Amino acid sequence: MADYHALWESLGMDLDTHDQLCAALPPLFEETFLNQTDRPEGMDYFNMVIAEVHGLRIQELADHKARGGLVVGSFCVYVPEEIVSALGGVLVGLCAGSQFWVPAGEKVLPRSLCPLIKAGLGAKLSRTCPYFQSVDLVVGENTCDGKKKAWEILGQHVPMHVMDLPNRKSPAGFALWREEIRRLTEELERRTGRTLTYENLLEATRRVDDKRRALQKLHGTRKNDPSPLSGTDALVTTQIAFYDDVPRYTAMTNQLAEECLARIAQGKGAFPVGTKRVLLTGTPVVVPNWKIHHLIETSGAVVVGEENCTGSRYYESTTDLSGVRDLPSLLDALAHRYLDGIHCACFSPNEERFDDVVRLARETGAQGVVDATLSFCTTYQVEGENLRRRLAQEGIPLLSLETDYTPGDEGQLRTRIEAFLENLG
Amino acid sequence: MADYHALWESLGMDLDTHDQLCAALPPLFEETFLNQTDRPEGMDYFNMVIAEVHGLRIQELADHKARGGLVVGSFCVYVPEEIVSALGGVLVGLCAGSQFWVPAGEKVLPRSLCPLIKAGLGAKLSRTCPYFQSVDLVVGENTCDGKKKAWEILGQHVPMHVMDLPNRKSPAGFALWREEIRRLTEELERRTGRTLTYENLLEATRRVDDKRRALQKLHGTRKNDPSPLSGTDALVTTQIAFYDDVPRYTAMTNQLAEECLARIAQGKGAFPVGTKRVLLTGTPVVVPNWKIHHLIETSGAVVVGEENCTGSRYYESTTDLSGVRDLPSLLDALAHRYLDGIHCACFSPNEERFDDVVRLARETGAQGVVDATLSFCTTYQVEGENLRRRLAQEGIPLLSLETDYTPGDEGQLRTRIEAFLENLG
Ligand code: SF4
Ligand code: SF4
Ligand code: SF4
Ligand code: SF4
Repeated sequence: MADYHALWESLGMDLDTHDQLCAALPPLFEETFLNQTDRPEGMDYFNMVIAEVHGLRIQELADHKARGGLVVGSFCVYVPEEIVSALGGVLVGLCAGSQFWVPAGEKVLPRSLCPLIKAGLGAKLSRTCPYFQSVDLVVGENTCDGKKKAWEILGQHVPMHVMDLPNRKSPAGFALWREEIRRLTEELERRTGRTLTYENLLEATRRVDDKRRALQKLHGTRKNDPSPLSGTDALVTTQIAFYDDVPRYTAMTNQLAEECLARIAQGKGAFPVGTKRVLLTGTPVVVPNWKIHHLIETSGAVVVGEENCTGSRYYESTTDLSGVRDLPSLLDALAHRYLDGIHCACFSPNEERFDDVVRLARETGAQGVVDATLSFCTTYQVEGENLRRRLAQEGIPLLSLETDYTPGDEGQLRTRIEAFLENLG
Repeated sequence: MADYHALWESLGMDLDTHDQLCAALPPLFEETFLNQTDRPEGMDYFNMVIAEVHGLRIQELADHKARGGLVVGSFCVYVPEEIVSALGGVLVGLCAGSQFWVPAGEKVLPRSLCPLIKAGLGAKLSRTCPYFQSVDLVVGENTCDGKKKAWEILGQHVPMHVMDLPNRKSPAGFALWREEIRRLTEELERRTGRTLTYENLLEATRRVDDKRRALQKLHGTRKNDPSPLSGTDALVTTQIAFYDDVPRYTAMTNQLAEECLARIAQGKGAFPVGTKRVLLTGTPVVVPNWKIHHLIETSGAVVVGEENCTGSRYYESTTDLSGVRDLPSLLDALAHRYLDGIHCACFSPNEERFDDVVRLARETGAQGVVDATLSFCTTYQVEGENLRRRLAQEGIPLLSLETDYTPGDEGQLRTRIEAFLENLG
């Protein structure tokens, strides 16, 4: 990796502490990814992106900003990338997946809070995340209590715009969300000096949906037995979708998908035919949180799908352009794509998520489902009770795991995972 | 107390387990309340209500139901009592304040959840709360994540109607809430066979606001030094407002307020002049959770106000009837009273609550504020950080406490409270 210290310094980062973080990532990546055998060649690109996660892409963002472009950060798949992109901006996911940032977050947040939120705020407060240092604006959203309230603190440290969401999907809830999309547009137009048009939004919608379709194509290949791609590799490709350059990412993902199809034709898999297959569901799994996938795939099974926001909830739905003929109708279609197409536990009821889990388990030939939630994630944990009931009705085995970003629980998690896998049909 | 076993049996209660609960309450009440000296005579009524909490009032509700009246349960001050009352129904608060119910709740809910929610569900699942057994309908609300998601489980055990709320106060948020009031009306009209009219809603609004005004009058007397009423006594009067017969409650509260005014004229106080004065803020404190008040008032201070939902947030705002001339405008005014008048941490931003805390601290002459939150209450705990900043700006000392319903932490809480009081100006 080139030396990016001057770049990082220009972003106002705490260089010494950041160096510690940079030293920790490569061994973790190596142990999780590079120890895998028989990986598709197309993973080379994604390996490189992770190796350069705080380098090359940060330089690209700096160049984009130097050309007058906006960089917007987000913590949720509800923030509409299409609008940011249509106005010439770049949206990057800030969801923070490392324990490294948690202590800094705990200085201003209660300990009994999801590690993703603590790491998110900690990354900003400690000035050790170059993405956070690059963003001109963070778009927050009122999804879970933790994030909703944490924005009030984060907003003191970075320019923020918060989108409200209803808690139930209803006509009045849609009207509220549609209005929030209008407000976001206004805010971004003001900050970019550009105007959202039917043309630029349609183009951006197609661009973003092409990315989603590439992901659908790639992850669709995992339905095969053997899966041409390990779950761990599959996961990192989705994680990278949150911050990589969109057209390049789409091209590389399509290329990897083609290679996976060829591997299927050749009978090549990441694991032998007949390896036990598991669907993961639950809370988002963001870089560099690869814990559960790694544990499952080093316990003799393969993860064949992720029903979560770093999985199917990110890429399964696209915008329905039928009937779209002008900017308002396109914005309506976009608002529907988000509100109706994403089944997050922050909504109540959220039965569609159970339908998705059952459908994905069937489609991918998973013998069991692992529901992995981050500690203190109330929405997903309470929803877990009804997920359990539903999967019992369907006769699909379920293992519920709760974990955070600390490594301390790996032994205990592995024991539970092994016991679960042993009993899978 | 008369023998209510036949009544309880008719409600489908688990009599053996409930007997254990009934045995636990009187000693707790005696130790907390009856050991106080020089209480106003008007407290006799409230003592009686607590002594009969599972008896007399349950009989009244049974009689009301026998006459065809509806009994509606709620867990939040956002559920509009006026509408229930206008349709001839009785609204009772179900907020559960005892550890007794927590283990039953933990069978279906994560341990890392606020005890109020766990006790609430546990009370129903264990069939040991006669209020829960009496209700024809529970009206839930999408406020915090824990409650929003717990309704999905509770709804399998009791008829439920859930009101959605926005997470931010905005015109679109108001429209959503106004629509939710319409939906609630529809649901209650269907269940009662009655029709909401301008006349019956106006009458109910006046009835409920009279209750609120009685509470304002009573709690207003606590501004005096010495306060004519202990905080512990003041708290229980508000707690009882959630389930007592409204006109009787209003009369008894006004009578107690008059007695308090007379005591002020006579220089009589619950504690000596100059006793250190504390304002409590934070999460709701529901029967029989009297822990923090009891600790503070047996550590040498007096609680002179509660900025919480079993305090000022319950009674400070009334419906503005100016400009109201028909049912729609009355419903608008009511919707505004709730959405604009209650400053719950479930909303973001919620700066008005900080204003309320500062104002109430000044009005009551409190030298310090105790922010007491229930364990795992994310909204209030995260908001606590900005409350701390605001009170520091205002020069008002703050003690933040986190507690649940178990008695285990009382020693440690007392130590912290004593240290805080010692340093108060
Ligand atoms: S889980 Fe919900 S809140 Fe989290 S990223 Fe997904 S949609 Fe957003
Ligand atoms: S994992 Fe749960 S608690 Fe954490 S940010 Fe997502 S929804 Fe919120
Ligand atoms: S604290 Fe909020 S959620 Fe709880 S009762 Fe009050 S208004 Fe309702
Ligand atoms: S105390 Fe907090 S977590 Fe508990 S019910 Fe109220 S708002 Fe929800």
